[in-house]
Amino acid sequence: MQINGATRVLGIVGHPIQQVRAPAIWTGLFRRNGINAICIPFHVMPADLDRFIEGASALRNLAGVIVTVPHKAMALKHVQAPTERARLVQAVNMIRWREDGTATGDIVDGIGFVRGLEAKDKPVAGKSALVVGSGGAGTAIAFALAEAGAAEIAVSDIDPQRAERLASRLREIGTTARVSPAVAHSFDLAVNASPTGMRAEDPLPINLENVSAATIVADAIMHPPVTLLLEQATQRGCFIQPGATMMDYQLAEMAKFFGFDGDYSPKAIEAVAGPDNH
Amino acid sequence: MQINGATRVLGIVGHPIQQVRAPAIWTGLFRRNGINAICIPFHVMPADLDRFIEGASALRNLAGVIVTVPHKAMALKHVQAPTERARLVQAVNMIRWREDGTATGDIVDGIGFVRGLEAKDKPVAGKSALVVGSGGAGTAIAFALAEAGAAEIAVSDIDPQRAERLASRLREIGTTARVSPAVAHSFDLAVNASPTGMRAEDPLPINLENVSAATIVADAIMHPPVTLLLEQATQRGCFIQPGATMMDYQLAEMAKFFGFDGDYSPKAIEAVAGPDNH
Repeated sequence: MQINGATRVLGIVGHPIQQVRAPAIWTGLFRRNGINAICIPFHVMPADLDRFIEGASALRNLAGVIVTVPHKAMALKHVQAPTERARLVQAVNMIRWREDGTATGDIVDGIGFVRGLEAKDKPVAGKSALVVGSGGAGTAIAFALAEAGAAEIAVSDIDPQRAERLASRLREIGTTARVSPAVAHSFDLAVNASPTGMRAEDPLPINLENVSAATIVADAIMHPPVTLLLEQATQRGCFIQPGATMMDYQLAEMAKFFGFDGDYSPKAIEAVAGPDNH
Repeated sequence: MQINGATRVLGIVGHPIQQVRAPAIWTGLFRRNGINAICIPFHVMPADLDRFIEGASALRNLAGVIVTVPHKAMALKHVQAPTERARLVQAVNMIRWREDGTATGDIVDGIGFVRGLEAKDKPVAGKSALVVGSGGAGTAIAFALAEAGAAEIAVSDIDPQRAERLASRLREIGTTARVSPAVAHSFDLAVNASPTGMRAEDPLPINLENVSAATIVADAIMHPPVTLLLEQATQRGCFIQPGATMMDYQLAEMAKFFGFDGDYSPKAIEAVAGPDNH
């Protein structure tokens, strides 16, 4: 890689930032695709986000910014032209500035989730889905499931009022949605979008009793790569989708949004990051 | 080089930006010195500089910003604690933010000029110097010559009032200074800090008639690497210093300012950039 004065910049803004994979993966993909661009970390505290975004809009060689935790919801107010999807989810995970200086933004967390399943010949259309956790990730996944034509979405949260708010927003766009306990039995698809499962001592976020092998079980958690939930679902013969898959299938959508040509498929990601380091 | 979430960022802000050498050279030096940092171009128009600098101050992993044309004078007002030197020159070519959020800034264009001569055993102390051009580069060089103990500084400019303003500011700090025509004869050191000589059809910026081989002739111009002025001075047996030398000898000062350990000497620069590509 040769960085020079003509290099375009893709930023990723978050706090903390040291753990993000984006700089290594995107920079590797740009090199592989022969594009003079790099992805760099922008470490910004929540109180400084407004000031940072205003400043970023002044950069003529900035392709855009990937927005990660904890800034996704707060960043929305700086986006003059969010996609319909970002408006529904009330958050963005990427922003770019247009010729006229205004920003557009989108959120593709949930799209990555759906694309990952589709790639394994598991389309979401017509399926009943349980989404556990109605925070940022759960909201993005739920709206993506709705967009992809899920027949029914059940929302579970340790805070039932928050679950009901999401269910109600899903009903507003014509989706059959309700609050449910975190029990996978009888659903075609069960997703953990809560943080439960990140720590070794965590209980199962979803009750898997009487789940049949026909139920797809997914987790949005990235670390560990295979959670206890996914392990137990595998033992029951279920098809599983880990968090990294959801992440990997976003990249092609992001490249399109930022205007980068080339191959940003999971296969390309594996080529630059290795099978276990993505 | 492996960019990751822990990578620190050194920016260079300018307009235009595609021609700057800093991203390639600094990034190469960081790699050579085993430092997880990169230097990236920030392309910012003059009207957007304020907004950019405010935003940059929000970045916790930004080591600082190198400031280049046309922003050096404008950037000063964002620096709460400029060095004495930056206050005198009324410009900065680098900014960094401190723990308390305030900015400090310095300008080392002129220091690089003086250090380059000292490295060739040509100390400036006690010498009479002619500085042609009293813009940003000329001002920085003149104050660095004064700081290094030059006996006398003569300033020349196509705008004599501008030359007189610089001479007067030099006298204010106790330096013997006056306005002079651009004639090198009788000076120990003659420097071109005007843009004359960048284009092939330009006349000589300094009259070299009757110049002895004892006079040192220098040019601040980077392209071409050896200007017509330097060619003709060489023919007269004079010691010459090209613009790239002034640039190269700044880097160690900059690394110190930004807090980077390692070797940033002209030898290290040549190792990463090649002898002709710096």
